[in-house]
Amino acid sequence: MNDLKEYMLRVSELIDNTLEDLLPAGGVYPESIHKLMRYTTFAGGKRIRPCLLLAANEACGDTFGNQNAACAGAAIEMLHTFSLIHDDLPCMDDDDFRRGKPTAHKAFNEALAVLGGDALCIHAFEILAKTNRIDIIQEISQALGTGGMIGGQVVDIESEGKNVDKSTVEYIHNNKTAALIRASVTTGALLANASPDDIKKLSSYGNHIGLAFQVVDDILDEESTTETLGKDAGSDRAKGKATFPAVYGIEESKKYAKELIDKAHADIGFLGNKGKILYELADYIRVRVS
Amino acid sequence: MNDLKEYMLRVSELIDNTLEDLLPAGGVYPESIHKLMRYTTFAGGKRIRPCLLLAANEACGDTFGNQNAACAGAAIEMLHTFSLIHDDLPCMDDDDFRRGKPTAHKAFNEALAVLGGDALCIHAFEILAKTNRIDIIQEISQALGTGGMIGGQVVDIESEGKNVDKSTVEYIHNNKTAALIRASVTTGALLANASPDDIKKLSSYGNHIGLAFQVVDDILDEESTTETLGKDAGSDRAKGKATFPAVYGIEESKKYAKELIDKAHADIGFLGNKGKILYELADYIRVRVS
Repeated sequence: MNDLKEYMLRVSELIDNTLEDLLPAGGVYPESIHKLMRYTTFAGGKRIRPCLLLAANEACGDTFGNQNAACAGAAIEMLHTFSLIHDDLPCMDDDDFRRGKPTAHKAFNEALAVLGGDALCIHAFEILAKTNRIDIIQEISQALGTGGMIGGQVVDIESEGKNVDKSTVEYIHNNKTAALIRASVTTGALLANASPDDIKKLSSYGNHIGLAFQVVDDILDEESTTETLGKDAGSDRAKGKATFPAVYGIEESKKYAKELIDKAHADIGFLGNKGKILYELADYIRVRVS
Repeated sequence: MNDLKEYMLRVSELIDNTLEDLLPAGGVYPESIHKLMRYTTFAGGKRIRPCLLLAANEACGDTFGNQNAACAGAAIEMLHTFSLIHDDLPCMDDDDFRRGKPTAHKAFNEALAVLGGDALCIHAFEILAKTNRIDIIQEISQALGTGGMIGGQVVDIESEGKNVDKSTVEYIHNNKTAALIRASVTTGALLANASPDDIKKLSSYGNHIGLAFQVVDDILDEESTTETLGKDAGSDRAKGKATFPAVYGIEESKKYAKELIDKAHADIGFLGNKGKILYELADYIRVRVS
């Protein structure tokens, strides 16, 4: 996976530079909110969503890191950051640490964390408009709304401490996590003007790896230490979260993650060698708990 | 102002119907968030922003209530509602009532109010995409971000209980309130493909009435009773808010509001009789405290 590592480094550099250009500087008035937006955006995320977007974009025939793809990748990372900031709030998951650093409302304050999340969401749409592609804005807004990410967050919170069935756990993770991951892949393909048939296959790939991503996250929460995880380990269980391990058990969850990745690999068979990075990214998502 | 009253009723009906069509029904899963979104969106707002959008659109030559204008008007009302829900949160202004009804976090809960605000913001952009006009999405997102509404909210909250100068009060209200009101007017004009020169004049009109709107709101908060206001009267003073009356005094604030409306009237002189509704809307904004 040396190719993948190198690819991920190139993406991180490109996205960090793009975000640096697009986010207002910390010295711009009102300074506090711009500092908060940058604090969480540059808190050490792996830029997996932009990586998927850029890899799908390139696999469908565009040049690596063209301006539209870089803009859309940066916007998706801002949208992901917005969701993390609001997710960590005291009235939501009430998390004090993320990636080993105090969460936004701890490092700043709660009002600013609400507004900083809002601003990242709004600025992301402003940046998406720069691509001059209405279809991208539709694709991403649909993945984020109550039929996607937000819907998943609602059911996640409302399921805490309850005995939920498998279909509810599937709903939560299909929406809370997989929807934006899937949209990252399809946005890359749409920007490269891929055919509807290819987009359908890539959408399926995105959904499979998105679901696997959440299953793996849940396993890590159960099996890791707080130190390696950068946030409180075992907090899902403590909160009575509806997770895959809680419903299926650890071994079954690992098996399920592997099945999902196998399906994702099959989805992109049509790309042949052009799909190499996407293929390895699917493995990368699972390998953390293999 | 009979013409205006009738116009506002027509707009309310059109926007309510459009919102009814565009917002997911309260019975759609997950139900709680859709109920919250509808609860605040249909809580009795006067639809002043859509009214300004539709009036500007018509004054610039489009047919009343065409589909793009109705969509954009509904989206702007959703964005306004999103800002109210987050503004009322305990960590922000901590208001229990708005328009005589419990605020969203009181009627539902805090987590759902955060997510419901987020969802209204996201769905508004999804709806704006339906107009197929990138320039509208740029106009509105710029008015909402940290260089507009959110920036104003940040400085508003950070100025509580402090002695602030006039330029800070102007900054807060130019951004917190006037930015989205101005964008409502310019969006209507842009949809009608008005000339850059006309849009500039309408932008100035929007800014003047937007500022007047906030000055009048501050005066009402000082002079009204809780019953007539539908929310806690005098709460600005209690919170040490940086308002116009606090800095300029009541009489000076009324005089200032009048000056702003006079300027707004002058801005739209070029429209002649086509600007009648916009002219009367400016008066309507001031007349509440005349």
